Parts: sequence; structure tokens; C-alpha cells
Amino acid sequence: MRELELIDALETVLGRGGPRIVRWLGDDAAVVRARGYAVTSIDTMVDGVHFRRGELTPEEIGHRALAAAVSDLAAMGAEPGEAYLSLALPAGAGTDETLALVRGAQALAAATGMTIAGGDVTASTTLTVTFTVVGWTDDAAQLVGRDGAVPGDVVGVTGALGGAGAGLAVIEGRAPTLDPAVADSVRARYARPQPRLDAGRALAAAGATAMIDISDGLASDAGHLARRSRARIEIALDALPLEAGVIEVATACGEGGATFAATAGEDYELCACVPESGLKVVETTFASRSITVGFTVVGRVVEGEPGVVFRGANAALAGYEHSI
Amino acid sequence: MRELELIDALETVLGRGGPRIVRWLGDDAAVVRARGYAVTSIDTMVDGVHFRRGELTPEEIGHRALAAAVSDLAAMGAEPGEAYLSLALPAGAGTDETLALVRGAQALAAATGMTIAGGDVTASTTLTVTFTVVGWTDDAAQLVGRDGAVPGDVVGVTGALGGAGAGLAVIEGRAPTLDPAVADSVRARYARPQPRLDAGRALAAAGATAMIDISDGLASDAGHLARRSRARIEIALDALPLEAGVIEVATACGEGGATFAATAGEDYELCACVPESGLKVVETTFASRSITVGFTVVGRVVEGEPGVVFRGANAALAGYEHSI
Repeated sequence: MRELELIDALETVLGRGGPRIVRWLGDDAAVVRARGYAVTSIDTMVDGVHFRRGELTPEEIGHRALAAAVSDLAAMGAEPGEAYLSLALPAGAGTDETLALVRGAQALAAATGMTIAGGDVTASTTLTVTFTVVGWTDDAAQLVGRDGAVPGDVVGVTGALGGAGAGLAVIEGRAPTLDPAVADSVRARYARPQPRLDAGRALAAAGATAMIDISDGLASDAGHLARRSRARIEIALDALPLEAGVIEVATACGEGGATFAATAGEDYELCACVPESGLKVVETTFASRSITVGFTVVGRVVEGEPGVVFRGANAALAGYEHSI
Repeated sequence: MRELELIDALETVLGRGGPRIVRWLGDDAAVVRARGYAVTSIDTMVDGVHFRRGELTPEEIGHRALAAAVSDLAAMGAEPGEAYLSLALPAGAGTDETLALVRGAQALAAATGMTIAGGDVTASTTLTVTFTVVGWTDDAAQLVGRDGAVPGDVVGVTGALGGAGAGLAVIEGRAPTLDPAVADSVRARYARPQPRLDAGRALAAAGATAMIDISDGLASDAGHLARRSRARIEIALDALPLEAGVIEVATACGEGGATFAATAGEDYELCACVPESGLKVVETTFASRSITVGFTVVGRVVEGEPGVVFRGANAALAGYEHSI
């Protein structure tokens, strides 16, 4: 299928954008009516590095690549906007596979209020999916960076951790005796992560001082918060909310559940620092916005050398200290 | 070099953005104060498809990838804004090569008024460089799409054509007897194309009805204009402005100069349709803005079946008709 025909086919898959999209596919560039501030992130997933083609369906590959990018907008507290897709396709990737990948992304875009407004299709030896996502806000002061955490803040995470890592372990056959229903559930956590746009905006509105999405694992991502905030973060391993099945998978992999959850990554939950006095506001904001995902306090920003330290009995990470 | 260290090193290469950049590298997303309309394009270049690593320097690869993306902004008549870079690096790409690539892009960004405001670095088997570029305008009516050409318009191109194709022929050893100074000159046209941002805005201001950048070759790109405008475009091959050396290279390749120039592509000049009465305005606008690149009339939009037809004696494309 020639590039032009493929692009025509893609147009039929993609939903028509809202009234803010002035021009889109088929021109040299998309034109979008702006709001006050553009919040932009670019994220690439490569076959063999971030996923394996045989292990995920094309729909899942498309969903997951967009989810990872949109998760960065969630971590800023931005509102959804547009996505731009670059697909580098190996010779073996047929039209059906390509359209299925775009359909997977389009379904997530529709569910999260994003519009896929442009793209590029090229040949390659390696399937490579890049999404640039643009979110918007009218007030830059409503956005949350990584750099505002101060001693006294509590540290919390949305949802439950470890599910994506457990899902990958299932896919890779490392937990063969897991209950099939639990296996399906954690596999879906890996294959179809849900970016926490609503929770991110609620946390921003509730006064979060620093925020990041958990893509590399809490140990690593809390380290980014500590580094940018020049702050010391203590995390209680025993407080981590674990996805169902994580303990079983971790055990099969020879690890403790909390350690597994703190290091496995790709959950795309949010980790946010909030003034202790603001916890009640987080609760009421989540409730008033009908946000059903939880926010669990897992640690605290304390005085001391910048870095992350884990506390907790019977866990390999206890006493782990990530100085920076 | 770990990703974090590489990103730190990249921060030293990249210039600090202007006052419109609120947040940039090191956060989950960049934050940019917007103007009325965002004009956005994503463009990927893959080693072995769009260039070969041994044939271009890393600086040239970076320059060329950004130039191709910015050229899309030029073709819309947009003003420069921000660029977001995703680099997928094979194991063999060292830090020096990577930083050189970014330096090449950064130099072009600085020269064109763009700010590289964010990025992503990942591993891959294939060097893959993706740029998303965002331009801005306060007035969407000032932008030019591909779809406004009407019978009576003249069709023109900026600069000279065929140079990039000639440069590639030189790089690939297909024109071994070319004068070395000319060879260097056409090689640079391939390796370091100059996006025509100023000319694009001038053509938009002068009333261009349809515009595209010449990435695939005039024959193909005029076809895009014809297709989107549902218009018939006649091009006089003998009128094409040829870069110095193109005739010699074309002859070495067994082609006529104009045919070569019309099909070789990657010149990143602009092809614009302008009402005949507006040609004088183009001239005075270019002059008043000190734009030194030329604008040469090469054809006309006529009544008839949508498509592109070439006219001209002694040329392989004469009588070529690209119906759509």
C-alpha cells in the first residue's frame, strides 16, 4: 500500500476533530485554535525495546504508545488536546496491522478527549511508534512540574502499582501458575494502561507541589521528583497499593510484592507530592469530580540530603537509598 | 551513557528558549505560552530510508531532519515556534555522534527562530530522528493550505530545483566527473536544505491560494496541490529554475535537467499558486522583507480534469500527465 493510500485509509479510522481543529490530515501541517499555554511531550516506543510485536496486538501497541505520551500530560495537570503520530513501518507490517494499530490509538484518544490531528508514515526496519501530544491550560500556574516538593509534603500515588510489571511477567511466561482471570487482568494493565488525566488535573487543582507519572517505576520516578525538587523523599514500602496478583507474580519471580511494584514500572499511575493540609482537598476534589481511582499516601518529603529512601520490613528495597 | 546523563548533556547543547518557554527539558512536558493558532507537523527520518549514516555527518543528519519538518511550517506560511526531538539510537551511536546530531539541529533552530523545547531518547536497532515542529500565527486566515488553487492562478517555485537530487547523486558516486566546487555545492543542498520560512510567510501575505513544500519532487508535490484543490496544473518544464550543476549531473544519470529537477525531490523549496494579479505583490513583498531567494513562475492552474500535466520539448516528462 502506498503512503498516500495508507493515509487515506487512516483518515477513515480517525475521528473528525472538534471545532478547535481548523486543518488536519492532508495538509502540510495541522492547524489548531490555541488556548493560553501549550503543554507538549514526545514519546517513542520501539519494537524489541518497549514492546514485542508478537506479544501485544496491534491495537494494544497503538493504545499503549498513545497512553504513555498522554500520561505525561496527566502528570502536568494539563487538559487533553491533540496527538500527532509518526509510524515507521517494517516491510512486514501490512495494512491491516497498521490500521489496527491506529484504531487502538484512536479508541484511547476518543476515550480521553484527545484528537489525533496529524501524522507521518515512513518505512523502517523496526516498528517505531512516536506520539507527540499537546495538552492545554488557560493558566500556567495550574500546571505542576517535578520541582516543587518541600519538606512536610506527603507523597501519594494514584491507583495500584505493579500490575503492568506483573502483566509483562505473565506475557513472558514468568508466572505460569497464576489464576487465569488474574493473569488476564494484569496483562491488560500492561497492554492498555490508562493515563490519569482526570486525576492529574484534580491533584493540580488540589494544590499538588510536584508530580510525575510512573513510567520507569516508583523508585526511579520518585528519584526524578527528588532530583528536580532538591528534596529527600521517604517511601514506606508497606504502604504501596498493590494491584491484585502482584504478590503472586512477584513471588514467582523471587521478589517481594512491594519491591516488585516499586521497580517494575509502566503502570502510568501518578506520583504526587501534596501539602499534608491539602490531603482533605484531594479527597473532596476527587469525590466532586467522580474520580474513582484512589490516591494512597506512600511517603513523605523530609529534611535532609536530596534523594529517595525506602522504609519497610522484609523487603529487598528496605534501606535502599537512591542519592542524587 | 545512560539516558539521564545524555539528557543532561543535551541540555548543554540546546540554547535556552525565549520568554514564551515556561517549562522545558527535565519536566514531563514542555510548557509554552501560546498564540492564536498552533501549526503542527511531525516528520521522521530513518537511517537507510531517508539518509545513510556514513554519507552524512551527524550534524547534517540533525540539520536535515529539522529542516524537513520546519519546511512544512514554511509551506503553511506559519511563524517559527518550537521543535520536539525524538531520537531512537542504535547501540553503535556514541555520545559524540548523538551530541553532534543535536548540535546540527540546534544550529538550524537558532538560525530559523525555532526553539528545541523537549525530546525523548530511546534505544533502537535503527537511527530514527523524529521532529515535531510547532509554528504559530495570530490569524488562521493568514495560513495557506493545499486546497485553494483556482484556474487563472500562476504556479511558482522558490529558489532553484534539482540541487538536492544532484547532491545525492554526487554522494552515491553517480556523477564522478563533476567539477569539485559544484559537487560540494549540490552536496550541501542535499545535506543542509534551508526551510523557506520567510518566503512562505511572504507568499502567504501576498495572497497565495495554495502552497506546499517540495519534498517528494515537483511532479509529485504539485500533484498534491492538484488533488486537494481539485484543480488542473500545467507546468512548463523549460521554465524550471535549475540549480547550478543539475544539468551535468542529470546528463551523467542519463536524464534531462528539468526532468531530473522535477522528480528528484528533497529541495525543500516551496511551490505556491498565486492569482496572476498578485505576482507584483509577491515581488514587492519579497523585496520589502529583504528575501533574496527568487520566485519563478513555472506553470498555471487551468480549467479541466484535476491533475498535473507537464509541457516542454525534449524532455522525458513532456506530455507526462498525472491524473488523480
